[in-house]
Amino acid sequence: MEKYIYSFAEGKKEMKQLLGGKGANLAEMKRLGLPVPDGFTLTTTCCLAYYENGKVFPDTLGTTIAESLKILEQQTHKGFGSLEAPLLISVRSGSVRSMPGMMDTILNIGLNDDTVKMLASQTGDKRFAYDCYRRLIQMFGNVVYSIPAEAFEIVLTHLKEQRGIQLDTELTGDDLHSLTIEYQHIFRQKTGRRFPQDPMQQLLLATQAVFNSWYNPRAITYRQLNNIDEHLGTAVTIQEMVFGNNGKNSGTGVCFTRNPSNGEKKLYGEFLLNAQGEDVVAGIRTPQPISDLAVTMPTIYTEFKRCAALLEQHYQEMQDIEFTIDNGQLYFLQTRNGKRTASAAIQILMDFLAEGLLTKEEVVDKVTFDMMEQALHPSFSEEELAEHSPFAIGLPASPGAAVGRIYFSAEAAQLASENDEAVILVRQETSPEDITGMIVSEAIITSRGGMTSHAAVVARGMGTPCVAGCHDLIINAEKQTLTHPSGQLKEGDWLAVDGSSGKIYTHVFELTQTAITPAFEQLMVLLTDMSDIDVRANADTATDLQTALYFGATGVGLTRTEHMFFAPERLIEMRRLILADTATAREIPLNKLQHFQTSDFEELFRCANERPLTIRLLDPPYHEFLPHDISEKNALAKALGISKTQLDQRLSELQESNPMMGHRGIRLAMSYPEIYKMQVTAIINSALVLEDEGLTVIPEIMIPLVGSVTELKWMRHYLETAITELLVEKNSHLTYKIGTMIEIPRACLTAHEIADTADFFSFGTNDLTQLVYGFSRDDVAKFLPLYLEKGLLPHDPFQTIDIDGVGQLMKQAITLAKKAQPQLKIGVCGELGGDPESVAYFHSIGVDYVSCSPFRVPLAKLALAKASIEAETFIVI
Amino acid sequence: MEKYIYSFAEGKKEMKQLLGGKGANLAEMKRLGLPVPDGFTLTTTCCLAYYENGKVFPDTLGTTIAESLKILEQQTHKGFGSLEAPLLISVRSGSVRSMPGMMDTILNIGLNDDTVKMLASQTGDKRFAYDCYRRLIQMFGNVVYSIPAEAFEIVLTHLKEQRGIQLDTELTGDDLHSLTIEYQHIFRQKTGRRFPQDPMQQLLLATQAVFNSWYNPRAITYRQLNNIDEHLGTAVTIQEMVFGNNGKNSGTGVCFTRNPSNGEKKLYGEFLLNAQGEDVVAGIRTPQPISDLAVTMPTIYTEFKRCAALLEQHYQEMQDIEFTIDNGQLYFLQTRNGKRTASAAIQILMDFLAEGLLTKEEVVDKVTFDMMEQALHPSFSEEELAEHSPFAIGLPASPGAAVGRIYFSAEAAQLASENDEAVILVRQETSPEDITGMIVSEAIITSRGGMTSHAAVVARGMGTPCVAGCHDLIINAEKQTLTHPSGQLKEGDWLAVDGSSGKIYTHVFELTQTAITPAFEQLMVLLTDMSDIDVRANADTATDLQTALYFGATGVGLTRTEHMFFAPERLIEMRRLILADTATAREIPLNKLQHFQTSDFEELFRCANERPLTIRLLDPPYHEFLPHDISEKNALAKALGISKTQLDQRLSELQESNPMMGHRGIRLAMSYPEIYKMQVTAIINSALVLEDEGLTVIPEIMIPLVGSVTELKWMRHYLETAITELLVEKNSHLTYKIGTMIEIPRACLTAHEIADTADFFSFGTNDLTQLVYGFSRDDVAKFLPLYLEKGLLPHDPFQTIDIDGVGQLMKQAITLAKKAQPQLKIGVCGELGGDPESVAYFHSIGVDYVSCSPFRVPLAKLALAKASIEAETFIVI
Repeated sequence: MEKYIYSFAEGKKEMKQLLGGKGANLAEMKRLGLPVPDGFTLTTTCCLAYYENGKVFPDTLGTTIAESLKILEQQTHKGFGSLEAPLLISVRSGSVRSMPGMMDTILNIGLNDDTVKMLASQTGDKRFAYDCYRRLIQMFGNVVYSIPAEAFEIVLTHLKEQRGIQLDTELTGDDLHSLTIEYQHIFRQKTGRRFPQDPMQQLLLATQAVFNSWYNPRAITYRQLNNIDEHLGTAVTIQEMVFGNNGKNSGTGVCFTRNPSNGEKKLYGEFLLNAQGEDVVAGIRTPQPISDLAVTMPTIYTEFKRCAALLEQHYQEMQDIEFTIDNGQLYFLQTRNGKRTASAAIQILMDFLAEGLLTKEEVVDKVTFDMMEQALHPSFSEEELAEHSPFAIGLPASPGAAVGRIYFSAEAAQLASENDEAVILVRQETSPEDITGMIVSEAIITSRGGMTSHAAVVARGMGTPCVAGCHDLIINAEKQTLTHPSGQLKEGDWLAVDGSSGKIYTHVFELTQTAITPAFEQLMVLLTDMSDIDVRANADTATDLQTALYFGATGVGLTRTEHMFFAPERLIEMRRLILADTATAREIPLNKLQHFQTSDFEELFRCANERPLTIRLLDPPYHEFLPHDISEKNALAKALGISKTQLDQRLSELQESNPMMGHRGIRLAMSYPEIYKMQVTAIINSALVLEDEGLTVIPEIMIPLVGSVTELKWMRHYLETAITELLVEKNSHLTYKIGTMIEIPRACLTAHEIADTADFFSFGTNDLTQLVYGFSRDDVAKFLPLYLEKGLLPHDPFQTIDIDGVGQLMKQAITLAKKAQPQLKIGVCGELGGDPESVAYFHSIGVDYVSCSPFRVPLAKLALAKASIEAETFIVI
Repeated sequence: MEKYIYSFAEGKKEMKQLLGGKGANLAEMKRLGLPVPDGFTLTTTCCLAYYENGKVFPDTLGTTIAESLKILEQQTHKGFGSLEAPLLISVRSGSVRSMPGMMDTILNIGLNDDTVKMLASQTGDKRFAYDCYRRLIQMFGNVVYSIPAEAFEIVLTHLKEQRGIQLDTELTGDDLHSLTIEYQHIFRQKTGRRFPQDPMQQLLLATQAVFNSWYNPRAITYRQLNNIDEHLGTAVTIQEMVFGNNGKNSGTGVCFTRNPSNGEKKLYGEFLLNAQGEDVVAGIRTPQPISDLAVTMPTIYTEFKRCAALLEQHYQEMQDIEFTIDNGQLYFLQTRNGKRTASAAIQILMDFLAEGLLTKEEVVDKVTFDMMEQALHPSFSEEELAEHSPFAIGLPASPGAAVGRIYFSAEAAQLASENDEAVILVRQETSPEDITGMIVSEAIITSRGGMTSHAAVVARGMGTPCVAGCHDLIINAEKQTLTHPSGQLKEGDWLAVDGSSGKIYTHVFELTQTAITPAFEQLMVLLTDMSDIDVRANADTATDLQTALYFGATGVGLTRTEHMFFAPERLIEMRRLILADTATAREIPLNKLQHFQTSDFEELFRCANERPLTIRLLDPPYHEFLPHDISEKNALAKALGISKTQLDQRLSELQESNPMMGHRGIRLAMSYPEIYKMQVTAIINSALVLEDEGLTVIPEIMIPLVGSVTELKWMRHYLETAITELLVEKNSHLTYKIGTMIEIPRACLTAHEIADTADFFSFGTNDLTQLVYGFSRDDVAKFLPLYLEKGLLPHDPFQTIDIDGVGQLMKQAITLAKKAQPQLKIGVCGELGGDPESVAYFHSIGVDYVSCSPFRVPLAKLALAKASIEAETFIVI
């Protein structure tokens, strides 16, 4: 027969599933030798059996409870219902996952018209005894028979009016005695029966009522909101009562073992003398800080400190403790892992490490990704969020939260920012021309585009919150309005943006600040130590790179050169280049661009300071550099001295049906190889400048969009010829690498061939995912939300690796490539390089490094440290 | 030491590589016991050694030639240089691959001032003897010493003027004697040396000259044009002379063993009595048909017929024979496989099969894809083509040739066609709205789009020639002009279009007609017998389907339903559907469309007549159905009763950045499942109509663009629920299948999962190739030509399977799928399903059927028959 009851002596913390959090932790504290009132726990399986049985106790339960009570009586030297030493008990719910306040509790069971008298005489405090009794009648009536609390409160209030007093505590023992009589009267009126005088009957009814509370409406809603399985059931813990209000040598309190805001190693809590928990809630008296206890009850304080340290050491987490002092005797009533800020959590873990309480591996295991995100980005408080519905919902494109006024163009955003306004930039979609506006904004909202759209990628790079692909928004930049089924906003209106959830609010929330503390920095060092593969950063500018290096990136896995062409003086040259008819006409703009690029790369190399720097040659199709609106077109035609018709014709020639799969990357360079030659010349020349200064720079040149080894062979030969000429001229022996993006499915399928011609591989997961799924990144927002909603996809494959499809193909490619070239260095520089789950997968299939936007470096490091430890563990086992 | 000389007795036809075509075939005829003048052949390796040796004969060659001559003298009972019975020989080139007329030949070697007299007295014909001698001097002078032929011709002309005669033949023996003296004089003048009187010297110099002619400018050019390797070298055949002009019992002729135009089994040739080959060329007398020989020389005719049959039987091909009758003795001088029309070739092969001359396997082996293409499509004659440069070159998007007048819109094309004009439709790119214009056109030209563009796919379906992606053309539909760097054309101008080569000409060529003869039909039956997998057709209309069935398609592998929505009365409903805001508003157009679809499918099912019919549900993105130009938009807004702004907004919402990877196929159906439900209802209802008539119809419903099994599961369940309702209502037990396109790389990678939910797979190679390469079909023309030119791709992967990439992925998918579901039927319905090389590959990786456009069914059948035989052979071995 199944065992439905465990005494505290039989339980332990690992039995949470069976005993609930409270029951397991009480047993554990008991095992640790802490002063805990005795008791026993009815298991969650008992609860389930109760429900299976049609809400009837399993046959033998009554007998078993009686037996357990017998033992409790022996332990406490009291008797349940005894008139000599009456045993009073509490009946409390305790589920596996914390559901604070959602289920019911009944205290003081065992009191009746007779035992209450005994309690009064034993304690010499009639007031105390009858107060306990009237609380029992009220709680029992309310929980077991659903008598509204007000039915009792009215009588209480009436009595206080009669007595002309304000506070319950001003009532005398006699007042309370008469109240118990009135309460019993109400009980009988409401239920048609007498308040049970048999303690055993009280206990059984109370237990049943607590089981029933598993399905009360509050609990159901809470479980739904928090994804708690209803089939877990609740345990019920039955425990001897202790009283913090049992005279001046009594008291009650709560305490965190460390400071939950900043993690400081110092008890952080409060207590009230001669009071019960509910008195603290009532707020009659101001509690004292826990440190006062050292003065008031020094022995107890010393004992408390010892026990708290013991608990912390034992649980290896900061503890949140409830305690009671009953007539000079300290009791621990609850302990659990304490809620704390990310900053505190990290501080505590690093302290635990320093104290030898945790190993490095344990610290890595205990750091969560949420913790890291919260430490890195500002956020809104959960409590506040719960009180406001979002105005609109889009894709959580770049984490963090911000509030500000909305502006509809980069120019307006800049202007407002100059007037010290907090700006939210709102665009249908951003293009590289918006970059100045994006830089000054607190957050970015777009109505189109997905997780890898321009807005999303750039925002993540800058650590700016972004909600992208918010399809329900109709953005009219001209009229400066933002329309949503739920209302219209205009320029200057306030919005709050939560880039971590993709939600936008019209309520102006307060922001919790980020916490990049010394402990965070120590953690970064630890994570780097613990990872067996590198984390590089995607960085297009020296600023990006500095951020990345601060977070411990070991180099740059991806520098996108196209973003370098958008400053006005460069863009005009780029346009001149694109619109040139002949190779000769291309020469002038190419020379100018080479000049710009050389200084770009010089700055980056200098900042990277001998760390590897992978530069991707021009990737996007030409038309991305061309103007879209008429006034800009006219200006361009004028600047270039060509007719509008000529310009229009060239623009139309460059138009593509599916530009993502069009004339771009190495394909464009096959048609106009002099562009790559210019870029490579700039790279080598800038490296030579640093070489002259005594720095060892090994440029890594990366070719995008290779699908066949023949392409890479041709281009490699072409570029090497150009480089050799430069090096011979400068009499330099600079080493350099030429590698390729692996982002076309065909490159994966023929990776063994390509491996022979490449010095390194770098997976471009954005393009690869796009092609493996046939999901256009720019258009996916039209159907992806529905796909996620219908469960057709477990997650957005642009955010988290699709292991079965994209991942499988990457794995194949790595196997093929490493077989052909075991020494080949293989990285991932696509968006997924910063996603923890994806990074763990990449680790498992043998990539040598991942590269991600600077603000995701810490997350990637954490994922890799975790994955490395796991892999290590497997090996050991 | 290497053997450089082979007597005819030592050679055979398999030694072509060594002996050249002529040498090998002469030896073979000798082996067959045919009357062939004796001789021997210097090998191609001898030629190569000669060149390696710095154009000097290998050391021992002189000796070996002398030895071979000795044997020849014994065989002929003549002596080289002998005054009693002088042996005269010819020295002819003979390369491995036919290079007609490109290299040199010298006849009558062995004649000198002495032997010529002997010849005169032996033959009793001084005129004949000296004519032979003067030809030798001229030929030798020209070939060995490059004396221009005119140097000799002037003298000859002068002599004829002196004699007052017109023809060479009117010259007397004495005239010719004196001419040989004058010719020798010229020879001495031009070369500074005497015309060699030593026959052996003549022979060696002649041989050397023929070797040298391998590198004459004509030969070099010819090899370049025909991709003949210069390292093959030429053989030289030395053979006893026989003379057709040796009296009235002599003659010469050429003869095909069957009619080269239509393949009729009847000798087809002509001959001239008392004449040499060059007399036939000179056209002095009209040759007689070969049948006359039966009358003139019945014994020889009988012998000729016997030998011709023997040769045909031996070579298993129609033969092209050169023969000479020398004083009543028949000699065969050459035999080779005869050039014939595709129609003749097929007739002959089927006759050979009937005659038991060839097995079925041999016939299949001998049928070529070119033959098939020529039989199916009209073409221009190669001779004519060689004389004209193309006006422009594009992609060979649909084979066949046509001439007609150009028109720039579907309307103009229709109007011109109604006036009985031959129309060439010229468009930047076609869209489904152009379909009526395409139907009436002889050919279609587009300046954009690739091999799988709308124009290309539709044209191939209709068997209409098409040149697509002709990027150099600037098409101005408004001004009705077609501009190319080489000139401008306007509406009504003539063009000739060669869809097989992608070339366009302003010259109006004559067309050779197609040849779908009874023999062709027999061949189709044979191919079907010989294939171990099925060929289905891609057919959207009953007309397509009829064509396909005529060519022996076993069913329909792909019916695209989207083309059914383009008739005006349907298009408006489709647009109404797309622009509807609510499910209710969608109901009316859906009902109307369902009505249309039901009759579409009923017609197709009726035509398929119990053969399998696979119907693909709606695939393209919505915006393909929407109007593009302003007037059409206005008309639509009016028809739908909405404002232009509303229309524009909806149009802009439907716009996509990369529509090929956008909201289409099953993705669109996830958003609006009622569309697929409508289509499936129409399919089932129409099948039920035929079921009522007693036909067994098993509809195959195909879902496009599936990338995850979850999509197919959801949709299958949704559609099955709808179908079950229909069947229950009609109390029918109709069976049906639900399968999926495999065209997304992810579907290949997860084929094992999808296999469990699909009744069949059909690879869509167009989309699959597009995604595996990341090559947009609509944009690929911008860089594909360069890629092919640079050798970066071996061929257009949209035309011929990319085995290493796309093919590899398909193979993986098949392996995964068949492992999960061994019974799963797997087909290919993409464009490559009609390409022979691709089809052979598909056969090898285990597909169960291929499906292609109707006019490609014969090609696919041929490819499969060949592949099946090859696979069979492997098994036997």
